[in-house]
Amino acid sequence: MSTHKDADWTEDAHNASPDGEFVRDTNYIEDRISPTVSEPTKHSDGTFLWPMEAGRYRLIAARACPWAHRAVITRRLMGLEGAISLGLAGPTHDVRSWAFNVDPGNIDPVLGIARLQETYFNRFPDYPRGITVPALVEESTVRVVTNDYNSLVRDFITAWTPFHRAGAPDLYPAEHAAEIDKVNDYVFRSINNGVYRCGFAGSQEAYEKAYAQLWEALDWAEQHLGKQRYLVGEHITESDIRLYATLIRFDPVYYGHFKCSRTKIAEMPNLRGYLQELFQLPGFGDTTDFTEIKEHYYIVHKEINPTQIVPVGPDMSWLMEAHGRERFGGQPFAKGTTLPGPVPAGEKVKNPEPFQASMVPKP
Amino acid sequence: MSTHKDADWTEDAHNASPDGEFVRDTNYIEDRISPTVSEPTKHSDGTFLWPMEAGRYRLIAARACPWAHRAVITRRLMGLEGAISLGLAGPTHDVRSWAFNVDPGNIDPVLGIARLQETYFNRFPDYPRGITVPALVEESTVRVVTNDYNSLVRDFITAWTPFHRAGAPDLYPAEHAAEIDKVNDYVFRSINNGVYRCGFAGSQEAYEKAYAQLWEALDWAEQHLGKQRYLVGEHITESDIRLYATLIRFDPVYYGHFKCSRTKIAEMPNLRGYLQELFQLPGFGDTTDFTEIKEHYYIVHKEINPTQIVPVGPDMSWLMEAHGRERFGGQPFAKGTTLPGPVPAGEKVKNPEPFQASMVPKP
Repeated sequence: MSTHKDADWTEDAHNASPDGEFVRDTNYIEDRISPTVSEPTKHSDGTFLWPMEAGRYRLIAARACPWAHRAVITRRLMGLEGAISLGLAGPTHDVRSWAFNVDPGNIDPVLGIARLQETYFNRFPDYPRGITVPALVEESTVRVVTNDYNSLVRDFITAWTPFHRAGAPDLYPAEHAAEIDKVNDYVFRSINNGVYRCGFAGSQEAYEKAYAQLWEALDWAEQHLGKQRYLVGEHITESDIRLYATLIRFDPVYYGHFKCSRTKIAEMPNLRGYLQELFQLPGFGDTTDFTEIKEHYYIVHKEINPTQIVPVGPDMSWLMEAHGRERFGGQPFAKGTTLPGPVPAGEKVKNPEPFQASMVPKP
Repeated sequence: MSTHKDADWTEDAHNASPDGEFVRDTNYIEDRISPTVSEPTKHSDGTFLWPMEAGRYRLIAARACPWAHRAVITRRLMGLEGAISLGLAGPTHDVRSWAFNVDPGNIDPVLGIARLQETYFNRFPDYPRGITVPALVEESTVRVVTNDYNSLVRDFITAWTPFHRAGAPDLYPAEHAAEIDKVNDYVFRSINNGVYRCGFAGSQEAYEKAYAQLWEALDWAEQHLGKQRYLVGEHITESDIRLYATLIRFDPVYYGHFKCSRTKIAEMPNLRGYLQELFQLPGFGDTTDFTEIKEHYYIVHKEINPTQIVPVGPDMSWLMEAHGRERFGGQPFAKGTTLPGPVPAGEKVKNPEPFQASMVPKP
């Protein structure tokens, strides 16, 4: 008999509908952080509100994971490093899910634990779903607060305002909020999750359906970004962070491993230039670790790569070439915004590529 | 207990050295065809010479297999269709190896058998090695004569001369013979077999070694073909046929399935133009079936693609764009050579891509 703790807790719920389609488990711990409460307070819908307090929470991410990458980029752009600490699980893990196996002694130095699942079980002893990053964890109690990556990232932008750095960008401007939500929804269904629907399809038919939907959306993005510099409005928004996290993994992982292989991003002129520009900005390229990204997918997903051999390629040095996106006018961020400073010591990516050397100072 | 007939007879001997390197079984049936004998005659080295006779032999190939593709291209360029018939095994098979599962009733119409292994067992009841294509089979006795793809193709060029069409090219000209042999040897070790050494490596170290050797050779080819139109001399030779069979499968299969994924051929300007020119010539593109190629690798190699899902991509329509190779001067074939006529009825590829429509007349 398999017990609760023997279950498969890995990142991606491999649910499948009767026709073999991959269905992501979209039930998360939906607690929020709020400046209106001074202790965890039950909300009418059953979720909790938690106090907004610097030094109280630790963001647990992994370089490999695109959903966590959004939170890491946003935290850095908003300058929340002083308010919310960062713990990083390693790229590979067994069925017990994310482990702190790149930390000294394989223990997170702040939480004092080896596996993220401890924070879930401390809060919910019978937690029945996937142990996922990103997760916000209360440091003093080592309990998970939320793993809902949508609200977690949105709260970094719109709720944690008292702790933003001076000159932080507005990644969710009110005048574009409706369009951002609309684009996010389309990009989530067809691209962010679309690549997983290709890779984890349980039948040829389900794969081909997901592939067609993915490429319809990527062709839309290629065309759209041939008319304007960013997805929504004239500056970088939350929508661009979400698309970046998928595009940067596309050529190294999704193209081959997930069989999304119609065209590389490197071969699509507008998406190529767009990705180059984002990669070259602080927060994007300097939080991207291609070694950990490839190791995660190719080693953890043994069911689609049984040899667990990790590709050496592709050559991604084109990311540092001139992008030419200035021709669309505008600026990455609105007037008054400044770029974040250097990556804090201890948060630099562990495996910078040679072409990243100029953006990732040697430790 | 596993018996002789239960063994794994599939194409690629998955031998592995102690360090995980894939080692191809290069022991083949080395019999040759000769105009000097009138019946099968034992040679001093133990192999046989077989009479050269039109209508006596059937070439068994498969659209999927690069080693067989060489024989199919050469037969067509030399105009041997009237002398040697062509049987085509289907793209997928079980451990008993190649089967005639795309023929009506799943039976080869000339040999009257369902599986190529019958021709091997008819000749050698205890045949111990892989059942491979290309194979030359004596039609009257349904016995395999040779499966040595090197001598089989070479004999099409240099021995079957009485049956060549008028205007057939010289694919192994005496003045370039030594260089052709040298290039063939390098291309075999590093590219033709190099992609298999990447894909079937049993360890990360063996894979990375094969990958480095492959890319050293492909970078050499890219540079070499930036200086001259073809690999050796001023016209197409056997060396180009050998390289074509690997390059045309590179982006659809070897790039992702075999993790050769540094750069696509489509991204390498000289190899791209070279492959475009060859593809657009009779004998090359009109014998290439991307559907069968992809189905073979992705369905048969379950040990590296357990889902057996076949990718829809990549987009290969660039093969029909202008190649610009005329800038190097010269011609595909020497003066006096003519191009082969239309593909004979019954030998057209079963799954032409839309962009192949102009070269593959509708049946």
